[in-house]
Amino acid sequence: MLEDKNKNKTNINSLGEFGLIDILTKDIQIKNPSTIKGIGDDAAVMNFKKDNVLISTDLLVEGVHFDLSYFPLKHLGYKAAIVNFSDIYAMNGKASQLTVALAVSNRFPVEALEEIFAGIKLACDLYDVDFVGGDTTSSRQGLIISPSIVGHIKTGETVYRDGAQEGDLIVVTGDLGASYLGLLVLQREKEVFKVDPTNQPDLSKYSYLIERQLKPEARKDIPPLLAELGVKPTAMIDISDGLSSEVKHIAKSSGLGAVIYEEKIPMDPQVILTADEFNLNPLTTALNGGEDYELLFTIKQDDFEKIKGNPHLTVIGHMTKESGTFLISKANKKIELKAQGWDALKNKS
Amino acid sequence: MLEDKNKNKTNINSLGEFGLIDILTKDIQIKNPSTIKGIGDDAAVMNFKKDNVLISTDLLVEGVHFDLSYFPLKHLGYKAAIVNFSDIYAMNGKASQLTVALAVSNRFPVEALEEIFAGIKLACDLYDVDFVGGDTTSSRQGLIISPSIVGHIKTGETVYRDGAQEGDLIVVTGDLGASYLGLLVLQREKEVFKVDPTNQPDLSKYSYLIERQLKPEARKDIPPLLAELGVKPTAMIDISDGLSSEVKHIAKSSGLGAVIYEEKIPMDPQVILTADEFNLNPLTTALNGGEDYELLFTIKQDDFEKIKGNPHLTVIGHMTKESGTFLISKANKKIELKAQGWDALKNKS
Repeated sequence: MLEDKNKNKTNINSLGEFGLIDILTKDIQIKNPSTIKGIGDDAAVMNFKKDNVLISTDLLVEGVHFDLSYFPLKHLGYKAAIVNFSDIYAMNGKASQLTVALAVSNRFPVEALEEIFAGIKLACDLYDVDFVGGDTTSSRQGLIISPSIVGHIKTGETVYRDGAQEGDLIVVTGDLGASYLGLLVLQREKEVFKVDPTNQPDLSKYSYLIERQLKPEARKDIPPLLAELGVKPTAMIDISDGLSSEVKHIAKSSGLGAVIYEEKIPMDPQVILTADEFNLNPLTTALNGGEDYELLFTIKQDDFEKIKGNPHLTVIGHMTKESGTFLISKANKKIELKAQGWDALKNKS
Repeated sequence: MLEDKNKNKTNINSLGEFGLIDILTKDIQIKNPSTIKGIGDDAAVMNFKKDNVLISTDLLVEGVHFDLSYFPLKHLGYKAAIVNFSDIYAMNGKASQLTVALAVSNRFPVEALEEIFAGIKLACDLYDVDFVGGDTTSSRQGLIISPSIVGHIKTGETVYRDGAQEGDLIVVTGDLGASYLGLLVLQREKEVFKVDPTNQPDLSKYSYLIERQLKPEARKDIPPLLAELGVKPTAMIDISDGLSSEVKHIAKSSGLGAVIYEEKIPMDPQVILTADEFNLNPLTTALNGGEDYELLFTIKQDDFEKIKGNPHLTVIGHMTKESGTFLISKANKKIELKAQGWDALKNKS
């Protein structure tokens, strides 16, 4: 997925807006039976029969959400799509149609946009999502991407944030904290590169962390896995802002409190080793790092036997009647969870 | 809809992201039975039974699509919503759910965002659309708004761009060219203001033009009107880039040509008078000015009697078997229509 630096560069202004759209969308094929009409009209047309329809939207701004000095454009397109798919899986749904609105300044040649679209299309192919529309326009400076994702789910199967009950178990998929550490590694290498551009760093020992940052995956597999196991979560959310923030969301929406246990929080060995290198507590990266795109959900205690031992799923705590969201540390101390706010969001990447 | 300049200013950073969202969305109510869950989860949830579902998305960038020195923030929110509703009406549909992703720099206080949201909410109220979600983030500079609109329509009633047949009549709603002239008036006043800030211009003779630019309306009335008249358009599009561009879109999509007549093109007297003031041919503003948000559609010749004399509808030409899109001038000259491209889009506002 690396960019070919030797390509010829075509100025965007040499094409009309519609010529540009034709180039960017030429290979797109529709695969989902729910898509009736994709790109090329005033709106995309879909039909979901009696299913619930899900929509979520996002906005990624250069210099705030990504830094193109270490973020390849194809990866950026891929990640922009994945991040949105994740919101649909967090409703227990199937992501099915994506639109992308994009603004770029003149400094981007057509080939740069083709890279972004190649990443978006790859994500759509791998996740069975149809790319059905968007908007391409100019910006005064920088790159702006706004994807919107449509998905669907049988009426009774929709899972909200507010359905957790007292005593429900809190479950997380995969492992946490890696994406944020990947970002720290990339930012550090950027600084090294500024001082010595001939330096060729060996990043192999950070490969998992960097992949989680530059090419995250969304948990498309979890809704069908849960269906197969016969488990319907009582509440679900995806982990985009860090575990603390998401536990607080489920607790607040459900009108309950929550307790999670430090010793249960799943972290990759690379997270633990690399956090140490940055003088960080690995727990902090799992709680507040964000961009993991794992799913956090609650289940009835009776369902525990059904998920027990599944390598994708870890029980990390439970919902409580008493309000407040707490971490029980390995030293058995009860610490209140803090959520990230606007400032942290701004300074994160 | 004017801004109160004396309000206290609250710094965005003084609130968390979620505190900000709470403030901006506090008055929002759900009115459409198709909306199951609005703001507050990973995705909005809707159900349209067996209807087709429509989605369209847009991206508006400060300094490219709008200039805040003469565009009040509440109007901007209103227009961002309206422009999207228009895409749904152009499919013969009913606009029903809106999401808005928004990025702002620190120079915008919370009150500025409240103004934008007030405009969005007003548009939603007047057009029976539910505001169901979005994303609020920071930008390095300037304001970026990306709305996505969801609508629906009975399966057999959906109208595409590609259904026009040879001999079909080309019909336009309302009148054209006013919005672009409104923009020219506002840009001129901005220049005057720079030279003499005490100047209080009398803009009353441009009131219609300025309103079309700053507070455009979308043709929500047209799909039900056509249903009432018993007319189903064979093709339809909304006029955002100017009449020429839209006639060409319908012709190209339908694999046909088209002829329109200069003398038939509906223009307000203010358009004709003001174009003259700017040494412009009023026809040019109607053909290429854009941002009219009227609807352009084709109907079978047999349906002419049903729409004849309707004050909202003007027949301006017909579809031809021969390819090419032409204007027949008042002097009976046949002139090829030119569409706007990327450059024009960039320089338009």
